Amino acid sequence: MESMKNRRTVRKYLSKDISSELLNDLLETSFRSSTTGNMQLYSVVITRDPEMKEKLSPAHYHQPAIKTAPVVLTFCADFGRFTKWCEQRRAIPGYDNFQSFMNAFIDAVIAAQTFCTAAEEAGLGICYLGTTTYNPQMIIDILKLPKLVFPATTITVGYPDGIPGQADRLPLNGIIHDERYNDYTPADIDRIYAYKESLAENRRFIAENTKETLAQVFTDIRYTKKDNEALSENFMKALRQQGFIS
Amino acid sequence: MESMKNRRTVRKYLSKDISSELLNDLLETSFRSSTTGNMQLYSVVITRDPEMKEKLSPAHYHQPAIKTAPVVLTFCADFGRFTKWCEQRRAIPGYDNFQSFMNAFIDAVIAAQTFCTAAEEAGLGICYLGTTTYNPQMIIDILKLPKLVFPATTITVGYPDGIPGQADRLPLNGIIHDERYNDYTPADIDRIYAYKESLAENRRFIAENTKETLAQVFTDIRYTKKDNEALSENFMKALRQQGFIS
Repeated sequence: MESMKNRRTVRKYLSKDISSELLNDLLETSFRSSTTGNMQLYSVVITRDPEMKEKLSPAHYHQPAIKTAPVVLTFCADFGRFTKWCEQRRAIPGYDNFQSFMNAFIDAVIAAQTFCTAAEEAGLGICYLGTTTYNPQMIIDILKLPKLVFPATTITVGYPDGIPGQADRLPLNGIIHDERYNDYTPADIDRIYAYKESLAENRRFIAENTKETLAQVFTDIRYTKKDNEALSENFMKALRQQGFIS
Repeated sequence: MESMKNRRTVRKYLSKDISSELLNDLLETSFRSSTTGNMQLYSVVITRDPEMKEKLSPAHYHQPAIKTAPVVLTFCADFGRFTKWCEQRRAIPGYDNFQSFMNAFIDAVIAAQTFCTAAEEAGLGICYLGTTTYNPQMIIDILKLPKLVFPATTITVGYPDGIPGQADRLPLNGIIHDERYNDYTPADIDRIYAYKESLAENRRFIAENTKETLAQVFTDIRYTKKDNEALSENFMKALRQQGFIS
């Protein structure tokens, strides 16, 4: 539990490699976690080859972690393998739809997160690349993902080069709800975000970006409406291409 | 790592309660896990009240765990709180779209899975209810989830009543891929599913359901095309209702 409490996202890695033995052990451990109907609706593509990292880099907006980490893992929602099994066993599969995509997506993220927890306990550091669902089609093409396989999330992993600071978190009572969702009043919002807004680092972000508030750094620069709408269209197009929606 | 390797899904619980102190500690630990842009796009609704469990029960097809577990947790994708914050800070939010839903959904599942790992390490047992996305609208109504909040997954948690057997898993090399996705040949499929198909328990399922193959138990009974298509429509309707797609 201590390694879960003290964790930090690690974006800088030593050039030390991760042995296949350790990596396989961590992956096998992660595959023990819960999965929909014990179908294990995921696959993991392991990237170690520098040339492949170079190819994946633009899909992840050239975040440095992808090229400096010894190992990059793309966890994929995978109903393709299961569908092939069905077809080979005189069973008629019905997994070319959105619900099935979401089942596989949950399975992939659960396995990915268990991998992260296990890796951190073993002294490794990880970073999620949320960019995976931003440019799914590029990743599909590079990793040659067939129909009913979709990249869910990417994890860079390696031995940490230094110990980064721990990120702030919202107060617990700003996230949990007793019995029913208690919608937030303006006073609640002020209270919940007060600590985050007080941090010197976040005040610097505001100044650097010549904004008035921290929220504006998110809405105007980091996660804009325009980008989100374009990415939503990309996502849907790739879902169609991979056969999960019609 | 040992508790991750040895884990089993627990569906039967002792009547012993979980203290708020322990529960809060586990939740706080889970909120240390990775989150998109440190936005923490999730909320957790805690159900302890037997009356609320009774109400939630039909949404989960009356799975017994929901009424016998001392605590039921509904992890929700939540862009509502963040959007309220933006609106209160002269920032124009753009999170009423599919990409934002998926970002929040990933965040919710990552936190849920870290909770499970921490709970298991603390001697508790958990069970995921995948039914959460089958009847989202029922859960939205019961838990009073506002716009831009969506139930992602539900976990029942309690002290285990007995130690269930460990479920089988596919062989590691049936799930991982080096550098590129190596699509499965018929021989690969036979090999990967051989152990699962050999299990007495699975042979019994085939006989009980008067089917020819285990795959047919999945396609004809457990996860049918007809159900998946109806559930996909339900899901999309609820996504629209909660403001994530138009």
